[in-house]
Amino acid sequence: MPRETRWEIVLDNAAALFSTNGFAATSVREVAQKSRISKAGLYYHIREKEDLLFRICEYSMAAILTGARAAVATGADPVARLRAAMRAHTDFFWEHPHNLGVLNRQMTFLSPERRRRMVDMEREYLELIRGVIREGQRCAVFRAVDATVAAFSLFAMLNTLDGWYDPGGRIGPKALVRQMETLFLSGLAAPRGATHGR
Amino acid sequence: MPRETRWEIVLDNAAALFSTNGFAATSVREVAQKSRISKAGLYYHIREKEDLLFRICEYSMAAILTGARAAVATGADPVARLRAAMRAHTDFFWEHPHNLGVLNRQMTFLSPERRRRMVDMEREYLELIRGVIREGQRCAVFRAVDATVAAFSLFAMLNTLDGWYDPGGRIGPKALVRQMETLFLSGLAAPRGATHGR
Repeated sequence: MPRETRWEIVLDNAAALFSTNGFAATSVREVAQKSRISKAGLYYHIREKEDLLFRICEYSMAAILTGARAAVATGADPVARLRAAMRAHTDFFWEHPHNLGVLNRQMTFLSPERRRRMVDMEREYLELIRGVIREGQRCAVFRAVDATVAAFSLFAMLNTLDGWYDPGGRIGPKALVRQMETLFLSGLAAPRGATHGR
Repeated sequence: MPRETRWEIVLDNAAALFSTNGFAATSVREVAQKSRISKAGLYYHIREKEDLLFRICEYSMAAILTGARAAVATGADPVARLRAAMRAHTDFFWEHPHNLGVLNRQMTFLSPERRRRMVDMEREYLELIRGVIREGQRCAVFRAVDATVAAFSLFAMLNTLDGWYDPGGRIGPKALVRQMETLFLSGLAAPRGATHGR
């Protein structure tokens, strides 16, 4: 097994434990046991438990940012760009189902410096999405709502899924994403007959 | 000062401390000091610290439910009903700005029985909102999206405001609510030319 893959497995196991039991109640020993490596082996990669939390948060946000940057960089129209960014966001969490819970509820246990690093990454994500929304408004594809309110409404829909959505339930992940796209992109669409946006 | 008012002040103070410092890190003594009553006086109202947390959660959800029931009970059309429910929801949190943070992050410290009570209240709220959405779909005012996805998308927008929105900032509370209404209700609106919804 390549080392990166093993490290990713360790991070997924740590995310599952942090998300389910909380960062404070989880020990490095438990993460090692669940990952079938020795505690010493785990401490080869980290200095302290908080390093695991930071790596999970950073890895998650970096993956989402990479997807958003790729979505925004395509030559497609603003609707298709937002759609691609939404899919990149949700795809990451289908692959790493516990990481959303960690980002939502455990980030408070990061050191101030590391929390700032996360805030910077979130800020970049916000700028990317706001940029697409404003571009869509300039070319009259999107209505004249505040781009910040619209961007945070989108993040709200995506980031609260772990509170209610069951991927094994009545609505499959692909159908769910289509429903959210319809709701959000129809809400953002310029009213018919409008000739300009801002 | 009537006793109920003083008790509400105690709950608001407890909510501010729980939301800012966390339930676990807050003592009953701090709540009493902030409320300018004796610890013994506070223990006249509660048996233990968790009682304060439960009363905050129950009081908040009860107020939101009362507003939603009133909004749904009006004879107005589905759009106006949803609008009224959204305003009742946000109005409560403008009046009790720390309670949203408590509901979002501290509810995990409730006993299982009391958490079930909160889940029951949340369930009633969901049913009320889904009912209005389905009614709007029956009379072809709303599009044929899944009512559960739509309801949780609305809750997501409303319940994550404490993570980013500053009522003293660039967008005032009334303007914010109008923006969210526009985004959500336009997203839900039946496409023009559609003759039926489900």
